[in-house]
Amino acid sequence: MGATRGFIVPVGGAEEKIGDVAILRRFASLCGGSQGRIAIIPTASELAETGGRYEELFHSLGVSVARSLPIASRADCQRREWLDVLDEVEGVFLTGGNQLRLSTMIGGTEVARALRRRNAEGMHVAGTSAGAAFLCEHMIAFGREGASPRAKIVTLAAGLGLTNRIIIDQHFRQRDRLGRLLTALAYNPFAIGIGLDENTAGFVGPDETLEVVGSGALTIVDSSELEFSSMAKVRKNDPVCLIGLRLHILNDGSTFNLHTRLAAPPPVVAKRP
Amino acid sequence: MGATRGFIVPVGGAEEKIGDVAILRRFASLCGGSQGRIAIIPTASELAETGGRYEELFHSLGVSVARSLPIASRADCQRREWLDVLDEVEGVFLTGGNQLRLSTMIGGTEVARALRRRNAEGMHVAGTSAGAAFLCEHMIAFGREGASPRAKIVTLAAGLGLTNRIIIDQHFRQRDRLGRLLTALAYNPFAIGIGLDENTAGFVGPDETLEVVGSGALTIVDSSELEFSSMAKVRKNDPVCLIGLRLHILNDGSTFNLHTRLAAPPPVVAKRP
Repeated sequence: MGATRGFIVPVGGAEEKIGDVAILRRFASLCGGSQGRIAIIPTASELAETGGRYEELFHSLGVSVARSLPIASRADCQRREWLDVLDEVEGVFLTGGNQLRLSTMIGGTEVARALRRRNAEGMHVAGTSAGAAFLCEHMIAFGREGASPRAKIVTLAAGLGLTNRIIIDQHFRQRDRLGRLLTALAYNPFAIGIGLDENTAGFVGPDETLEVVGSGALTIVDSSELEFSSMAKVRKNDPVCLIGLRLHILNDGSTFNLHTRLAAPPPVVAKRP
Repeated sequence: MGATRGFIVPVGGAEEKIGDVAILRRFASLCGGSQGRIAIIPTASELAETGGRYEELFHSLGVSVARSLPIASRADCQRREWLDVLDEVEGVFLTGGNQLRLSTMIGGTEVARALRRRNAEGMHVAGTSAGAAFLCEHMIAFGREGASPRAKIVTLAAGLGLTNRIIIDQHFRQRDRLGRLLTALAYNPFAIGIGLDENTAGFVGPDETLEVVGSGALTIVDSSELEFSSMAKVRKNDPVCLIGLRLHILNDGSTFNLHTRLAAPPPVVAKRP
């Protein structure tokens, strides 16, 4: 492992687990395929079978090791054996559930430090649904639904902090979350908003290029040219005025560079004769 | 009446009918207040009482004449008496219901021609919900809900045609319609997309400046800088790739110029001491 950061892979939830399995297959391949070792952190889920289910899924995709670390308390985050696993694997996958279970149990622990350090060294970290929300510095903890931003409809909390460039929301189309993502950005337009539909992932490489994988859309809200936000003076549930956002709707194969903020459509593939 | 076009006023539906009544009050005032005469076209609604209800509302706001023209067939659109009313009033209000009732009964008739001609001469035309959808050249007839654009989730039809600069969708936040508005724009990025929350209106003046009135948000989707749309080659229900949209979320008092495509926040009002 060199000093090149590993991929950061937020998934919008409900990723395909039978059939094409494009997202999980791509992650397994990224982690080394048949040589790959993947740790699963099922902490967001309250279902006992979640970790085992992903062990089976990744095994069926041919990786050499897929091991669930069922962290269920802050004390669990000090287990030497599990920290050793995080030192050895090529990838970590955080399951869905409730992102506040992740932030309250893992935040500030040895496991959080290990995930950040190892990602900086090249280990890939994916998270689906609640796991996706937790990946970044600023995490949408919860909020209300609806297409328009309104004061106080979203609650932000500190996440794992692999990057502060993006704020992620998931189940995006399915749960009508543009309003809460815009509200999160309205507080401070520094970050780029990423709305992930179900069965849709953004593979963010070490060069800060995000590539879309999956059957849904990935919505980019770029507030770098924002001219005005009324967030400082609106009252609860009042609509927020936001002028000058850029919006891209990306599908499978499209890319977005988080540094240059340029989007590109999927490359044209020559048709078969 | 000179050659200055009247206002075009799409309303997002469910406008306040008791209490502040800001939108209807503003329209009544625009039409001349106590001197004003307003015709109501309740054709979109299948409820017999709709026309009478708006007659009462506008009378309670002090206009001199508020008269419902309960057009219920294409033959009704040739009634000389009703056409004479349209020649005399300062404003016309189209109620909500089903926009296809408006387009199928009024499209191509003397009433449609009268509305277009009189609007060009200075008569104001407002429409709420289905009435708003019908105002423009390109009308969203129906579609499926969801935040992401997908091929074929929206069906466009020809509307009244007071302007072709905008495509309107209503009940915007309440019915999660960003996806279908984006899909409509993806076919041809010429128009500006206007998403109206309930109890929210855009007053589009003869100078092509839209002013927001009401308690919700008005969403502007400006596709004039669109770099890419995959609409030509996507299959049904596939997500559409759209790169380079501009997005503004406007609240009461904000403005947007349809010609320059510049948005402005509400003017700052000095606080009372």
